[in-house]
Amino acid sequence: MKFNMNNDVVIFGMDNSWELASKIGKSINREITPVQKTTFADGEQLLFSNITVRDQSVFIICNTSRPVNDNLMSLLIFIDSLKRASAQRIIVVMTYYGYARQDRKASGRQPITARLVADLLSTAGADKVITIDLHNPSIQGFFNIPVDDLRGQFIFSNELRARKDKFVIVSPDHGGAVRARQLSELLKNDDEIAIIDKRRTGPNKSEIMGVLGNVEGKNVIIYDDIIDTGGTILNAAHALKKQGAKKIIIAATHGLFSKGFEMFENESIIDEVIVTDSTDHSSLSHFKKLRVLSLAQFLGLVIEANLNKTSITEIYNAYSQGKF
Amino acid sequence: MKFNMNNDVVIFGMDNSWELASKIGKSINREITPVQKTTFADGEQLLFSNITVRDQSVFIICNTSRPVNDNLMSLLIFIDSLKRASAQRIIVVMTYYGYARQDRKASGRQPITARLVADLLSTAGADKVITIDLHNPSIQGFFNIPVDDLRGQFIFSNELRARKDKFVIVSPDHGGAVRARQLSELLKNDDEIAIIDKRRTGPNKSEIMGVLGNVEGKNVIIYDDIIDTGGTILNAAHALKKQGAKKIIIAATHGLFSKGFEMFENESIIDEVIVTDSTDHSSLSHFKKLRVLSLAQFLGLVIEANLNKTSITEIYNAYSQGKF
Amino acid sequence: MKFNMNNDVVIFGMDNSWELASKIGKSINREITPVQKTTFADGEQLLFSNITVRDQSVFIICNTSRPVNDNLMSLLIFIDSLKRASAQRIIVVMTYYGYARQDRKASGRQPITARLVADLLSTAGADKVITIDLHNPSIQGFFNIPVDDLRGQFIFSNELRARKDKFVIVSPDHGGAVRARQLSELLKNDDEIAIIDKRRTGPNKSEIMGVLGNVEGKNVIIYDDIIDTGGTILNAAHALKKQGAKKIIIAATHGLFSKGFEMFENESIIDEVIVTDSTDHSSLSHFKKLRVLSLAQFLGLVIEANLNKTSITEIYNAYSQGKF
Amino acid sequence: MKFNMNNDVVIFGMDNSWELASKIGKSINREITPVQKTTFADGEQLLFSNITVRDQSVFIICNTSRPVNDNLMSLLIFIDSLKRASAQRIIVVMTYYGYARQDRKASGRQPITARLVADLLSTAGADKVITIDLHNPSIQGFFNIPVDDLRGQFIFSNELRARKDKFVIVSPDHGGAVRARQLSELLKNDDEIAIIDKRRTGPNKSEIMGVLGNVEGKNVIIYDDIIDTGGTILNAAHALKKQGAKKIIIAATHGLFSKGFEMFENESIIDEVIVTDSTDHSSLSHFKKLRVLSLAQFLGLVIEANLNKTSITEIYNAYSQGKF
Amino acid sequence: MKFNMNNDVVIFGMDNSWELASKIGKSINREITPVQKTTFADGEQLLFSNITVRDQSVFIICNTSRPVNDNLMSLLIFIDSLKRASAQRIIVVMTYYGYARQDRKASGRQPITARLVADLLSTAGADKVITIDLHNPSIQGFFNIPVDDLRGQFIFSNELRARKDKFVIVSPDHGGAVRARQLSELLKNDDEIAIIDKRRTGPNKSEIMGVLGNVEGKNVIIYDDIIDTGGTILNAAHALKKQGAKKIIIAATHGLFSKGFEMFENESIIDEVIVTDSTDHSSLSHFKKLRVLSLAQFLGLVIEANLNKTSITEIYNAYSQGKF
Amino acid sequence: MKFNMNNDVVIFGMDNSWELASKIGKSINREITPVQKTTFADGEQLLFSNITVRDQSVFIICNTSRPVNDNLMSLLIFIDSLKRASAQRIIVVMTYYGYARQDRKASGRQPITARLVADLLSTAGADKVITIDLHNPSIQGFFNIPVDDLRGQFIFSNELRARKDKFVIVSPDHGGAVRARQLSELLKNDDEIAIIDKRRTGPNKSEIMGVLGNVEGKNVIIYDDIIDTGGTILNAAHALKKQGAKKIIIAATHGLFSKGFEMFENESIIDEVIVTDSTDHSSLSHFKKLRVLSLAQFLGLVIEANLNKTSITEIYNAYSQGKF
Repeated sequence: MKFNMNNDVVIFGMDNSWELASKIGKSINREITPVQKTTFADGEQLLFSNITVRDQSVFIICNTSRPVNDNLMSLLIFIDSLKRASAQRIIVVMTYYGYARQDRKASGRQPITARLVADLLSTAGADKVITIDLHNPSIQGFFNIPVDDLRGQFIFSNELRARKDKFVIVSPDHGGAVRARQLSELLKNDDEIAIIDKRRTGPNKSEIMGVLGNVEGKNVIIYDDIIDTGGTILNAAHALKKQGAKKIIIAATHGLFSKGFEMFENESIIDEVIVTDSTDHSSLSHFKKLRVLSLAQFLGLVIEANLNKTSITEIYNAYSQGKF
Repeated sequence: MKFNMNNDVVIFGMDNSWELASKIGKSINREITPVQKTTFADGEQLLFSNITVRDQSVFIICNTSRPVNDNLMSLLIFIDSLKRASAQRIIVVMTYYGYARQDRKASGRQPITARLVADLLSTAGADKVITIDLHNPSIQGFFNIPVDDLRGQFIFSNELRARKDKFVIVSPDHGGAVRARQLSELLKNDDEIAIIDKRRTGPNKSEIMGVLGNVEGKNVIIYDDIIDTGGTILNAAHALKKQGAKKIIIAATHGLFSKGFEMFENESIIDEVIVTDSTDHSSLSHFKKLRVLSLAQFLGLVIEANLNKTSITEIYNAYSQGKF
Repeated sequence: MKFNMNNDVVIFGMDNSWELASKIGKSINREITPVQKTTFADGEQLLFSNITVRDQSVFIICNTSRPVNDNLMSLLIFIDSLKRASAQRIIVVMTYYGYARQDRKASGRQPITARLVADLLSTAGADKVITIDLHNPSIQGFFNIPVDDLRGQFIFSNELRARKDKFVIVSPDHGGAVRARQLSELLKNDDEIAIIDKRRTGPNKSEIMGVLGNVEGKNVIIYDDIIDTGGTILNAAHALKKQGAKKIIIAATHGLFSKGFEMFENESIIDEVIVTDSTDHSSLSHFKKLRVLSLAQFLGLVIEANLNKTSITEIYNAYSQGKF
Repeated sequence: MKFNMNNDVVIFGMDNSWELASKIGKSINREITPVQKTTFADGEQLLFSNITVRDQSVFIICNTSRPVNDNLMSLLIFIDSLKRASAQRIIVVMTYYGYARQDRKASGRQPITARLVADLLSTAGADKVITIDLHNPSIQGFFNIPVDDLRGQFIFSNELRARKDKFVIVSPDHGGAVRARQLSELLKNDDEIAIIDKRRTGPNKSEIMGVLGNVEGKNVIIYDDIIDTGGTILNAAHALKKQGAKKIIIAATHGLFSKGFEMFENESIIDEVIVTDSTDHSSLSHFKKLRVLSLAQFLGLVIEANLNKTSITEIYNAYSQGKF
Repeated sequence: MKFNMNNDVVIFGMDNSWELASKIGKSINREITPVQKTTFADGEQLLFSNITVRDQSVFIICNTSRPVNDNLMSLLIFIDSLKRASAQRIIVVMTYYGYARQDRKASGRQPITARLVADLLSTAGADKVITIDLHNPSIQGFFNIPVDDLRGQFIFSNELRARKDKFVIVSPDHGGAVRARQLSELLKNDDEIAIIDKRRTGPNKSEIMGVLGNVEGKNVIIYDDIIDTGGTILNAAHALKKQGAKKIIIAATHGLFSKGFEMFENESIIDEVIVTDSTDHSSLSHFKKLRVLSLAQFLGLVIEANLNKTSITEIYNAYSQGKF
Repeated sequence: MKFNMNNDVVIFGMDNSWELASKIGKSINREITPVQKTTFADGEQLLFSNITVRDQSVFIICNTSRPVNDNLMSLLIFIDSLKRASAQRIIVVMTYYGYARQDRKASGRQPITARLVADLLSTAGADKVITIDLHNPSIQGFFNIPVDDLRGQFIFSNELRARKDKFVIVSPDHGGAVRARQLSELLKNDDEIAIIDKRRTGPNKSEIMGVLGNVEGKNVIIYDDIIDTGGTILNAAHALKKQGAKKIIIAATHGLFSKGFEMFENESIIDEVIVTDSTDHSSLSHFKKLRVLSLAQFLGLVIEANLNKTSITEIYNAYSQGKF
């Protein structure tokens, strides 16, 4: 693949996405520029560019994982600085979208913070947003600027097809059934899926009733979009084991591990946990069960498509044909 | 319940919601005002109020069911006329929200029409929207004005609790499982639910794989938010019959019946179809299997809550305590 | 004339403008892309592009004649889809602007729908609008995006100058006097015009009082911007005949013929009705008195001027010098 | 008529509308508050209120006649100050709307200043605008806030009906024919009107061709919305005299007299010039032919209708029934 | 002073302003409502009201001191929830405005975060903001909603006038000279002030050159708007001591103490540090040199003025006449 | 320095900036286009371009000095005309920003006109603003479009370094101390500055208390941003003379001379007054003490930087290295 060496582009990597940004830079042979950032004694932050962005197409590679409020405000401040420095357009490559789960009024008088975040980004000056596996695809409709919500399944299917094992894809709840089925199809595993059946027993509490579908004697992949603390997913694993599942692998695009990775490392029934580098995991590199797939090549291609005015669907096609 | 006879309010009923609007008027002892409407030879419409709305709180009772584009444009034109006539605030009581199912980019380059509709309403001048059983609750986040998305389950649970039969609530797809479970709880039917298991076999095509949960020898209610043509739901009914279901009732808030009601009337395995008057069914009154529950009292209470600055949660509580 | 073969442009033709769009495409040697459109059983529409529009200049050739609400909503939905698909700019070539006649509050509490339509187009995402012979030129001021309101007179004067007859141009009401005079000047017919004198006798009713100006023994062209049902214009024709007019030709940019063309075909005093293809007349091709002038070459030149950053005034000059 | 002595209202009179504002205040028995205004040596202006406007309904009685730019900027600055001082709503009673005649792109690349002015008023913080006899009623559509464009004809018809003479109403151009006819009907003068027929002979130049309608031996009123320099209208008067008109009266809502009143006072064929106090004429009080009708009572009633939430149509009805 | 017991008002106190909010509540005899707040394992926050706010005037007593990003996002989320819950108007009483010092582009490509914060508040849904001693009064112009920027000097002058000592007011830099002089006048101390003279010696570095004005043998108050770490102000104190100052008191509206209070407590030349409760100091209550003046009564009066539509200037007058 | 001869740019010079614009044009070898402007008898203005600006980058060289309201409205009207003529982007090079001193609410209920002006420019259609020595740098934050606020000090330091005299830079008030120090550093004059010490004695009145810093036997430059009437600065000169200053030069970016230049020419203690051509001084060319430095070369380089997407910081660097 040939890249157009467009000189009117600047790609920034935010601190907490620097590792991924560097890999993207290598993959497309473009320089990644660090952001000038100061945190003052009172916690206020100052961010700006050390180089001119006048009339440039600017990409910001970032994520708003923990600490979500600090990362979000950093991003907004940096966008403001770019807008005032006459950037031509500001494209936010946000590999993890904090507050995506506050996507509706769960009960009376609740906020819709995922919409608020969309408005904050537009207010600051973002012209376009690129995300990956948004918790709810309707969040695209919270924006009036273009949003490319990329599908991470291709990353996982490429990884898993290369293995000799065959897996049943399991959704940890009803909402994820479609996602599980799509991955299953990409794997060409005869479309076998299963669903964990839960009932809500109180505010934010639920109880597992059983497993829909047959997992006895089979290898399973519990597939979700976000692993937060991981409690729910571990309960699902135990339910699957009880139903006779053999190998259990957990796979999710976004691995937050809000209560640490130890609970996975120390849990004997879990064979492996696969996530992407949508958030930074460098501090977890010593854990043996953690496997991190990189989004670098994929995002590099998407950035090039934006610069070369080509279609992202073609990238998907290339991936599903196993070209990468 | 005492009503504040606030004189600074005008309640309009659009043509295609006139019957419901009249009932609401009776229920809260307020006058409903018709909209002055002309359709010209070339199809253009002119709508306005015959009475002054200067500094009034204006409610418009309406729905944007078929013909959706005509109804939507009529509504937008009427809102524009009220805004220019110095209405203080314009509250749109939209019992059916057309285009709600275009709530995300289903594939590359698709529109998000449900967001577009939200923007059109705001652009025309709506200050607040009241809906019932929105297809996707995240549509609330498509607005930056307040949206009260009412829950129609109370209407159904009041009706069904009064019957001597006991029912298993069945969701016709995975997405509706939560909705089915909530109704089941309100009915206090031991929380039994079932789900129709489908797989997608092509664009807009799917195949029923089976029924999750036990329906043998039981009465069932297939519960959904919208009945459009009804094809999917009839397939579900057949699958349930095959699994040994006894009585089969279909219940949905919004009954569009886009291909007519005959397919239900003539289908022997269907006992009854229950919908609300969120859209007008006066032309279907001769069908024996159709039962229409009225939203009039419920919406009347909600309008009063808006005028009296009280909480809608209290109305829900009254309903769930069987006060109505 | 040489055309810049800019590759960063996509030109769409909407269904009801497809014939005109195709001709434009031929005239400027550019491909016209059809719009992917589905109408569901409940009347909702889905429109999007089958090809990438990422960072392209997109033109949409369309009109919002009857059914006006369906055509307008289709257009808004398609614009929304293009905006979300990262089109660089969206230029709406709207050959007929529905609701243009609702351009003021005709009486208290009426809407200004022509302004509403302007706002809806901007809200959906239009960046520029190109129209032809807007009913009221002040509608340009309803927009805050650029509007090129093209003058169709050149099309008519080129056609009529080629004929051997000489004509008096007649305006069917006071409001059209300026338009009639401009055409007369372009024809270089000694600037003879006449005006039908009417008085309003009730809401939407008027009575012809006489003809101002001399038409006795002369060929006349009744010239207007829109023929809707045609009733008014036929009354005008009779009044002219009574005053001794010889040949009577009717000419108008936009021929809606809301009650059909028969009333013209069967009216012996009418010699010919000339309109443009701003709306589609393919179903009327069997009528002998109807003559349709194509806007294709003219609009093609305007599209090229937009791509090549040249002046439209130069196109007018070329036309008035008879270069086309 | 009883007035609601609402205490949450402040009515300001701008310097150049102070006389009219005072009369309005007397007519509705409310205090008019002067605006604190300073003009600095460099021409900058500072305007603000000396009393609190916190949460008040604020009316500003003003006009933007000559010097139009100073008056407009004064108004914008004052609106800004009220918005920042927490006024609840700001209603601009603008008896003369400067730049109303720049209401369309008269030729390529021209501005639409009447729209710009509308946007500037909204940007500064106006919530509603009340005007009288806007040059083009479509200017209402340049706003997205409510505009009450009042009709001054009632003021004129009340004055003229009281006279013993009978008049033919003459429009000085085609565009004013509707206006002339409406006044004629209010006068119940057998609906006789006439029109001055002009042709454009160059940019901003025109030549009178004749008079349409019969004025021989009759008293005439040349009726227009604006008298600017008055040159056009004097030419019309001469044309009418040539056609045998007897008494000639000139009537217009807005009398700018940009080149002074002497040309009217010294012109023997003119009997009288009648205007309203929409702009200030105190410096012209020594001219004998000038008669100024006051808008005070009319505007007072309109302000009360806004405070009491009643209809303006009722005021028109009262006027047309001769109640005032 | 009598208070209007308006029932259509809800006053919330955010967690980090709860103590001040409670005191305000007592001072005006109104209930303060706590905010329902949850912080999830991944750091995301959820805030909403437990009681209805439908059509209420809502006040939020809050500050965005350290941790500034968390406090700001909490505030934005809570405002969003109130807007969606149909609050009539949302008035943010923000006793400390984080990021106020990023009020201009200090050098090329820097952000203007104080403007960004203003936009974020408006975007979320704030209708009005009340602040106290904004770092730069021009920040009011960053908003297009009303901002009441209250003056804290009255609080300090009331406190200091009650003491028997006489003081010279010292500004720690040139920018604060006006502020120092205003306090001096309120104290009626013969208007003696002094200024610390500094020169910038590098980015964010400066060197004290001397003291302008005479402090020898006098008691001094170093008066500033914000004490952040306190380093600068301690250097100023040493310079003043060297010039022969006797008692040294430090006074500032906002006491952040970003590096703790020990540096003041342990510094023998400092007699006392006086701040307000614009930020919470409950954890510092054991320090003997710290004196905290409460804003409660003052803010209570301001809230009442907003509810009763009276002037804040009158409150200032009452304070400066020593009525409180 | 090589210039990119970009053909997609049009540079307009407004009437009152024509001389400066012409010099800029010569300096960068680009054509300057005059604006077509008409002022009507009633004071209304019409401005537009005589050449096409379709998709061009348009620069407008202008200033809004006296008559400020006429110049501001002219500018807004011209921007509106360019926007409607499809200009790609409109960059306003505003060498003097009228109303910049109304940058905060100086007391209760005052406007913030500098913010209003910013909003008016954006509303009309400006995409970017370039200013020089804004009275308050926070005015940049009044805009949400990019603002390049250029520093005029380089112009002055280049001029003054060339002289053989050495100067103490004096700020005429506390607010200008930073500005004085920056100029002093650029001159490499051992960083000697002085400040005029004033106290406010009433609204808009102040009294000079003395001079801070040593000026005895030295040449001084009183350095300010704006000379309005000049009264304050002449008082400062007298105070400096009393303290033993030798030569006194006055220097300011913007020389308004609202009460004429005679007071400087005739004042013997003033040696010279140096200003830039940010406003036009052609009518003052006969005064001997007035020296006008041209901004032409500097602004030319800035315009080129905008066209060539290079950094303005580099231009500053070149200036401070004495390259120009």
